[in-house]
Amino acid sequence: MGLPLAVAAGSIAPRGENPSAVGAAPSAVGGARGKALPLNTLQLGIAGYTFLHVPVDASIEMLKRVGITNLSIKDFHLPLDSTPDKIQSVKGQFTAAGIKIYAAGVIYMKSNAEVDRAFDYAHTLGVNLIVAAPNPELLSYVEQKVKSTGIRIAIHNHGPEDKLYPSPVDVYNHVKDLDPGMGLCLDIGHAARAGADPAKIVTDYAPRIFDLHIKDLAAISRVAQPIVLGRGVLDIPGLMRALIGIRYAGVCSIEHEMDMNDPMPGVAESAGFFRGVVRTL
Amino acid sequence: MGLPLAVAAGSIAPRGENPSAVGAAPSAVGGARGKALPLNTLQLGIAGYTFLHVPVDASIEMLKRVGITNLSIKDFHLPLDSTPDKIQSVKGQFTAAGIKIYAAGVIYMKSNAEVDRAFDYAHTLGVNLIVAAPNPELLSYVEQKVKSTGIRIAIHNHGPEDKLYPSPVDVYNHVKDLDPGMGLCLDIGHAARAGADPAKIVTDYAPRIFDLHIKDLAAISRVAQPIVLGRGVLDIPGLMRALIGIRYAGVCSIEHEMDMNDPMPGVAESAGFFRGVVRTL
Repeated sequence: MGLPLAVAAGSIAPRGENPSAVGAAPSAVGGARGKALPLNTLQLGIAGYTFLHVPVDASIEMLKRVGITNLSIKDFHLPLDSTPDKIQSVKGQFTAAGIKIYAAGVIYMKSNAEVDRAFDYAHTLGVNLIVAAPNPELLSYVEQKVKSTGIRIAIHNHGPEDKLYPSPVDVYNHVKDLDPGMGLCLDIGHAARAGADPAKIVTDYAPRIFDLHIKDLAAISRVAQPIVLGRGVLDIPGLMRALIGIRYAGVCSIEHEMDMNDPMPGVAESAGFFRGVVRTL
Repeated sequence: MGLPLAVAAGSIAPRGENPSAVGAAPSAVGGARGKALPLNTLQLGIAGYTFLHVPVDASIEMLKRVGITNLSIKDFHLPLDSTPDKIQSVKGQFTAAGIKIYAAGVIYMKSNAEVDRAFDYAHTLGVNLIVAAPNPELLSYVEQKVKSTGIRIAIHNHGPEDKLYPSPVDVYNHVKDLDPGMGLCLDIGHAARAGADPAKIVTDYAPRIFDLHIKDLAAISRVAQPIVLGRGVLDIPGLMRALIGIRYAGVCSIEHEMDMNDPMPGVAESAGFFRGVVRTL
């Protein structure tokens, strides 16, 4: 039981999720962490799909509450055919709340025109990363766009039942000989369902790991449902060690896909779990 | 983005918080944790003061959602002068939801009659631990009750402005020569505000550490407000290592004292942080 005054929600930023703050954090009581791993190296974010049933305003309030400042925006928050004014308006809402839109996606692309539209959208939005599922026959055209725009593509693996990219191995095999701006958004839940070990994927495909969708699974099976981070069997500390090992400079985005009409508690618990793992490594 | 079906909230229990489940958890992907520390040894709980503005029914729903099954009940959920029927009724609500009331408190005691009432209440409730702040002149009488009932007392440190027990050092000095059933409920936030290092307190006073109130502080200062676990400067991994080191068999109870009209997100994030730390150690 405590003092009468309350601290405003979200007023205290977690340590270590803003690289510019490294070195500025006060010392912890007890001091030594007893580990050689570098600190403050993994950034937390959120995948926009989390907000399938949550409007922009409420999503912003949720992100402020849980202290997450990196967003990969999904098209239901900002349609792909939005006018430049609309794009700037929605971006402005997030920016005003201290939230950086670092990527857009997942964006499906079934024609050259849809590829063009996605790159124009990303350009206007000011992001240099598109999380995508382009039809494989379009990859050569996508590569041209990556080269001409400097915007990178992170192809998203979507699990064993997906026709395009069931496993991160499939994504890698498609991009390994293409421009180095073409890589993976590793979805660790779908990866594990497809039989891949996320930590091994990170290590093996290090230069191509551009983005992550993090979640957990109650069991390793093809049909396992995604659950709150830390409630399941995925080895999240092992994954984070692998990410630190490759000096991963991207974002680890929670993609929360249960209780989607009320995602706050699950997102908050997942964010806490991520922070607990990172603080302890 | 994922599969269409949702997993029901709270249907997946976190690993490691129920000692009886040790050994039954499926293996993690990636396997090796690379640490010698024992796993699954720290139990998560919640201090009832968290629910200052939340009725019993809503508190139960929150606990189910965040997967916390250990409660130290506070008197606003069950008044100290409740009839035995009322005590059994409220206990039954929690039990039916899978929540164990492992302690009661914080209970203040200013007279022998209040000591008697607290022990009677605990006995009827079926708990063997009272988290308490008895007036120091009553400690001899409290010790008699501990001896005669077998119910232990965990005295709660309440910070530098408290007249009775500002620091865990004060608590320890009061109980160190008394019955071994008299010990501490270490409130780590109030301890740090009073200049104590929680991990050192745990190690130094190991046999007397009966319960914990865990939280965080934005800074180490006398007037720092309690915040979400992991958002502040307290060395929670170091504390957990110390607890594992002493083979702590009690509960680590989140006491969430901000946003008390809407504690769910903070409780969920704190629970996630605890689980992330414990999983990573």
